[in-house]
Amino acid sequence: MVDKNQLLLDETLLSTANGYIGVRGNFEEGYPIGIKTIRGTYINGVYSLVDIIYGENCYGFPQNGETIINVFDTQGITLTIDDDMFSVFDGTVLKMERRLDIEKGVSHRVIEWLSPKGHHLVIDIKRMTSFVYLQCFTIDYSVTSVNYDGEILITSTVKGNVNNYVDPNDPRVGTHHQQFLEISKIVINDHIVTMEATVSRSNIKIGVDMSHSCAFKYTQKNETVTGKRKFVVKKGETVKVIKYCRFYDNRRSELDISLDKLMSFGIEELYEKQENYLTEFWKFGKIDIEGEEAIEEALNYNTYQLLASAGKDSLSNIAAKGLSGEGYEGHYFWDTEIYMLPLFTLTSPEIAKNLLYYRYKTLDQAKLRGKSLNHNAAKFPWRTISGVESSPYYPAGTAQYHINADIAYAMIQYYLFTEDHEAMKKFGFELLLETSKLWLETGHYYNNQFRLDAVTGPDEYSALVNNNYYTNAMAKYHMQWTIKIYETLIADNHEDVIKALKEASDKMYLPYDKSLNIDLQDEHFLMKKPWDFEESKDKHPLLLHYHPLVIYRHQVLKQADTVLAHLLLDDRPLDVVENSYDFYEPLTTHDSSLSYCVYGMIASKLGRVEEAYNYFKKTVRLDLDNSHGNTKDGLHVANAGGAFMSIPYGFAGLRIKSDGLHFKPVKPVAWQSYTFRLNYKKNIVTVRVSDRMTITSEKEIKVTINNRVYYILGESSIEY
Amino acid sequence: MVDKNQLLLDETLLSTANGYIGVRGNFEEGYPIGIKTIRGTYINGVYSLVDIIYGENCYGFPQNGETIINVFDTQGITLTIDDDMFSVFDGTVLKMERRLDIEKGVSHRVIEWLSPKGHHLVIDIKRMTSFVYLQCFTIDYSVTSVNYDGEILITSTVKGNVNNYVDPNDPRVGTHHQQFLEISKIVINDHIVTMEATVSRSNIKIGVDMSHSCAFKYTQKNETVTGKRKFVVKKGETVKVIKYCRFYDNRRSELDISLDKLMSFGIEELYEKQENYLTEFWKFGKIDIEGEEAIEEALNYNTYQLLASAGKDSLSNIAAKGLSGEGYEGHYFWDTEIYMLPLFTLTSPEIAKNLLYYRYKTLDQAKLRGKSLNHNAAKFPWRTISGVESSPYYPAGTAQYHINADIAYAMIQYYLFTEDHEAMKKFGFELLLETSKLWLETGHYYNNQFRLDAVTGPDEYSALVNNNYYTNAMAKYHMQWTIKIYETLIADNHEDVIKALKEASDKMYLPYDKSLNIDLQDEHFLMKKPWDFEESKDKHPLLLHYHPLVIYRHQVLKQADTVLAHLLLDDRPLDVVENSYDFYEPLTTHDSSLSYCVYGMIASKLGRVEEAYNYFKKTVRLDLDNSHGNTKDGLHVANAGGAFMSIPYGFAGLRIKSDGLHFKPVKPVAWQSYTFRLNYKKNIVTVRVSDRMTITSEKEIKVTINNRVYYILGESSIEY
Repeated sequence: MVDKNQLLLDETLLSTANGYIGVRGNFEEGYPIGIKTIRGTYINGVYSLVDIIYGENCYGFPQNGETIINVFDTQGITLTIDDDMFSVFDGTVLKMERRLDIEKGVSHRVIEWLSPKGHHLVIDIKRMTSFVYLQCFTIDYSVTSVNYDGEILITSTVKGNVNNYVDPNDPRVGTHHQQFLEISKIVINDHIVTMEATVSRSNIKIGVDMSHSCAFKYTQKNETVTGKRKFVVKKGETVKVIKYCRFYDNRRSELDISLDKLMSFGIEELYEKQENYLTEFWKFGKIDIEGEEAIEEALNYNTYQLLASAGKDSLSNIAAKGLSGEGYEGHYFWDTEIYMLPLFTLTSPEIAKNLLYYRYKTLDQAKLRGKSLNHNAAKFPWRTISGVESSPYYPAGTAQYHINADIAYAMIQYYLFTEDHEAMKKFGFELLLETSKLWLETGHYYNNQFRLDAVTGPDEYSALVNNNYYTNAMAKYHMQWTIKIYETLIADNHEDVIKALKEASDKMYLPYDKSLNIDLQDEHFLMKKPWDFEESKDKHPLLLHYHPLVIYRHQVLKQADTVLAHLLLDDRPLDVVENSYDFYEPLTTHDSSLSYCVYGMIASKLGRVEEAYNYFKKTVRLDLDNSHGNTKDGLHVANAGGAFMSIPYGFAGLRIKSDGLHFKPVKPVAWQSYTFRLNYKKNIVTVRVSDRMTITSEKEIKVTINNRVYYILGESSIEY
Repeated sequence: MVDKNQLLLDETLLSTANGYIGVRGNFEEGYPIGIKTIRGTYINGVYSLVDIIYGENCYGFPQNGETIINVFDTQGITLTIDDDMFSVFDGTVLKMERRLDIEKGVSHRVIEWLSPKGHHLVIDIKRMTSFVYLQCFTIDYSVTSVNYDGEILITSTVKGNVNNYVDPNDPRVGTHHQQFLEISKIVINDHIVTMEATVSRSNIKIGVDMSHSCAFKYTQKNETVTGKRKFVVKKGETVKVIKYCRFYDNRRSELDISLDKLMSFGIEELYEKQENYLTEFWKFGKIDIEGEEAIEEALNYNTYQLLASAGKDSLSNIAAKGLSGEGYEGHYFWDTEIYMLPLFTLTSPEIAKNLLYYRYKTLDQAKLRGKSLNHNAAKFPWRTISGVESSPYYPAGTAQYHINADIAYAMIQYYLFTEDHEAMKKFGFELLLETSKLWLETGHYYNNQFRLDAVTGPDEYSALVNNNYYTNAMAKYHMQWTIKIYETLIADNHEDVIKALKEASDKMYLPYDKSLNIDLQDEHFLMKKPWDFEESKDKHPLLLHYHPLVIYRHQVLKQADTVLAHLLLDDRPLDVVENSYDFYEPLTTHDSSLSYCVYGMIASKLGRVEEAYNYFKKTVRLDLDNSHGNTKDGLHVANAGGAFMSIPYGFAGLRIKSDGLHFKPVKPVAWQSYTFRLNYKKNIVTVRVSDRMTITSEKEIKVTINNRVYYILGESSIEY
């Protein structure tokens, strides 16, 4: 009845998070020995340091890496009935249902169970990480007796002796398996258990308070505190215990609310607040697909998990796996700005602004990193938690200079969409300026063209190339907007830099091949050896089967690169975009989860709706179907963002430009319509695409649909 | 009186080795605490494995590295007189002389010493590692009393608890500081002490026998055996003790000679044999420089150390530091074939053949390495001891595919010089063929040119480039000669490969810039950003001050690259060679010790004798002046080979071609003449260059001098 393979996957898929804490969907009662599990609870931005060891160390290599840590385990609850402990691996499971309710923000497990002695129970468990009170994690544990009269025992634990997950077959995970928590305090008062710890090496202090809706008797053994309580039940009666936990750390004093206060609300009020929060979010975030309910559900599931992953304060961002697992060590990448921010920019600009502000807060570290690379400019880390470079393999790490432009791009798009002049003045311009200096530091003129050599673009199957189209085009956009913002908003103090940026952006070399009429992924891409796709067809991802030297030497892509630039910048003639798509698409393995969605969105632009639809389906089901095989290590949150983007940016063809919103809608034949909402300049804009495009706006807005300008107030229905 | 800084350097410079064992020039009596020393004894080809750890592991990365290990320490001898132990840091040193006698093959230390109590002694110590009996290491220890009558105590030790050197400031060395010897046997019989051990992880078994020319009383404590003997001396008398050691390992049974047998010769006969061996060697190896004795001495010192470093059996080769230290972990690189083999090819072809045979013996490992890089061809490791790749940083390691061509080049040059058809048939052709397949596997055609992308040439300040001139030109030579040898000597079974090699070598792309009339280090070298040499002038070597990404992005060279191809292949018009030299020379930092000699030899070719002479002086004094600052870690043996090459290949312009020897002599004005000898086709050829070129040959030989052909029998004096 219980699918053991699904369990590990469900731990990720049914994880609950709110951007501050994340709890994997482990069973409260645990699993028997022999069943693989990754039991984890994480706090966003709480990390430890680990040594990075190099066989051959070089100047400027990071000597430490940051890693997300598993914190106190408050998931444990056991139930004993007539000397049998509840487990879905013992007795008889008559029914088990698990789901994540994205309207209520609660994960729910219901088990109808016969104990080995034949006692019939219904166990109903709800978990919530509160979006309103970010510190708060609750487990709502109900046991209903169907045929049993007598005692049941419930125990509930908080454990401090936790380790990060180790897979002996994955050396990258395996090196960091020490215990990171040094427990500093365990206090049991009459009704609250408090456990505090210092994180080794980062010196961050964290703590948790735990209590229950009724009195428990607590005892401590080593670094575990266990509460016990016996209940007497009769047939048809329900015993209900609410476990309240409050996580905290010493860097977020603004979050502080006491556990007593949280408990004083009662669980029902907390549920109500959670639902209200989500109602507000879904007002913009929900996408309706008329004609394919399962796809709609999968899509909004992805959106929910992206919301759940997003840091809500300036000490945290969005990890590649959100707070659902330890994959990629909890690091933040360019994924945030390019794949995840669009959801928030379009629907919840405050969250978007905060994520950008996080980058601004780490600008000083980026400047230091720039210095260590001999650049007098900020250089954002490829992977980080606190803002310090944690990438130990620079060809597919530090060399990805484009992250500077990606962050700038997101800032610019946010600004164009929200017209938030204040944010741009307060921190945005400085972020744009300091990061754009990197291009001046690294680039140079040759034949009167401005070149960027020895960088790696988004496609990590080509490394250290000269004039990566994506990097150069994004850097050009970055510099152009730095200039434009300077001229319109700032106009002070930076004349020399601005002048240099003008020349560099004017003369930026964008490699293009005339005979193929395509933009070149890098200047010399066409000179590479063709890849033998037939030979490699059972060897995916290639990086696990070929030495980097071999991969780099060939015309083979891990993910969209030039095509991504075409999506983001939308500045190239359609024939170039189409030819480039047709050229690169067959060379792309999609070994990265950042790829499908981009190809899908460009397919939409090209009017190849069937192709776009197929890419979209792969995108939206990637984690649910575990199609990359590693969802156990956490959700592919960038892909989730790409799934969301696929509707407005993909099918509806949305682009945010200086003259407002542009659309170029198409619609998959399988759907009658799709609808999304935009939080555009503090105004609800509803966009519905059926055979017509219907836009509703409370205030008048200017939009461009298929290159024709419309001014819309109220509802307008337009033929496209 | 004792220069402490010089001591560490002298340990290297006065090390004694014979190609099988190497003993650093540590003081027998040790140093007081606080004086830095690297005490070491090494056996060529005896290594352990160490884990290579990567922050981010990739497919095909070597998981283990090999490292040379410090073996049994038999250097220890102490002398006690009237309760004072002899030390040059106590009492009064009236005189201390140390030198390495390259005619006798003995290192010699003489100390005239007043003990703290005023006893006057002369201590005379000779050390020898025998070239005739490779296992044999002797210390000839004499104490002469000048003013003392009484007892002296001599102790002599063999220690098994030795460690490799650790420098806490150098993480590359620091990771391997475990003790590698697991002592398996310590036996004291009446006059011989035997100690045996297994090397952890490689499972190689090694042992040492130790005895003395007179009876000692031996006692064991842990892993050290100490022999003691008291002597009574009178003024004017000498006490003499010979310590005999015999090292052995389980892979070299052919070496076996017993210690008793060695001792039966007596030290004088061993000295005589050593001198005879060297007389034979110097018959060809010695270079005479009339007019600058100090340079002549320095040059022949380098030659001696190269002889001392060279493995004499097929289980060993020549480490970058010879057997004089632990730098580069005792690895063999391309240095052997390109910088060291020429000495042996020209003077001691049997040693050259053996070194080439060593590569042949590791061909199977090279094929396996090729497979792990997805190539159906042999790919020789960049650094190795047993034949397995030990390079943890592939951009300046595995990516240097040119090592295949370097080995082939050395084989071809050996063959052309010796006409050793037997060796070519027995193993040479197979070596050429299997290594040349690599070019077919990695290269490809584009615009009807054969290209080799994503490789690193000799210059490690440019990595992963396309069409490195050196690599492509050497690969072309390699393929052409594989074909030629096949056609003239083999002509069987390989038609398809030969056909493919023909096309690839015919169409090999050799990047050249027409406007500058230079060969291009790599296809895109000119597009790189210029380097700011002024800014970096106090930051050498650059690799310790700049991130690789920064270095790789610029026009800056660590060492000769294109210019080296011009030296080895000698196939380009003089104006291209000259322009290339003038272009690259100012861009070269010479941060590698493989650089000076090459630029010097090309300067000779260009007739810029003063420039050549200056480079030669830097080459020949590099270790003696410690100009790279790391001679403590071992001799720069490739540079020593380059010093030797600078005379025949440099000033005399020797090139070995299919039509015989070519010369193009020049002479530094500081010298009246220079003379070298060639062991050419089993014939002594003496070449003396003064204002004329005088060649003497027992048999008739054909030589080409400044493009004119001469047939020489007896002595010919030619104007040049």
